[in-house]
Amino acid sequence: MTGAPIHAALPRRWDDIPAQRIADGIERQMIVGQRLMICRLTLGPHVDTPAHSHPHEQMTMVEKGRVRFTIGGHAREAAAGDVLHVPSNVVHGATMLDEEVVLIDIFTPIREDFLA
Amino acid sequence: MTGAPIHAALPRRWDDIPAQRIADGIERQMIVGQRLMICRLTLGPHVDTPAHSHPHEQMTMVEKGRVRFTIGGHAREAAAGDVLHVPSNVVHGATMLDEEVVLIDIFTPIREDFLA
Repeated sequence: MTGAPIHAALPRRWDDIPAQRIADGIERQMIVGQRLMICRLTLGPHVDTPAHSHPHEQMTMVEKGRVRFTIGGHAREAAAGDVLHVPSNVVHGATMLDEEVVLIDIFTPIREDFLA
Repeated sequence: MTGAPIHAALPRRWDDIPAQRIADGIERQMIVGQRLMICRLTLGPHVDTPAHSHPHEQMTMVEKGRVRFTIGGHAREAAAGDVLHVPSNVVHGATMLDEEVVLIDIFTPIREDFLA
């Protein structure tokens, strides 16, 4: 087991989970399991997350706001209620449009690089 | 690869994903990746999901409503904004309280039994 395992019986509220400022205009909260990890990202308007890839499979749920994603060379706009799938090693990035955005990023396996 | 892989470039809206009635008062929508799967469950007031377990690791986000969960013998109440972690093989069940509930269940690996 890696990371910070959660006691199974304990529900956690996003409101109680500390947010870490990981870059200008980007705050991240994390819930870490054994092979599953959820990150809640709050991003300012017009923030860019540069194109990158990782071996981890990812699904992203848009909780709030509007985003332009680029995944595997295709650009798509997404809004609250949309879900995106990023298979292993597919290059992806995102640009927030003109309002604050909240994203739920789900990974398997867990992002050890986020826990360093 | 198993299940119904999603084209990486295509965001999907929950509103466009068919809901399957899987039991009285329970509808399920699914987004299926390779090792990640998201199920969105809409459950009526007072519906019970009986205690069960599976080798898949699970995280559940409460999107709407109030639920009484039992996980590994511990009972806890949860509401919108709460996240629960169910490690592999831990027995869990839930009872909806007095309003409609929406849950986001995240699994790894995917629930092949849901795709039969």
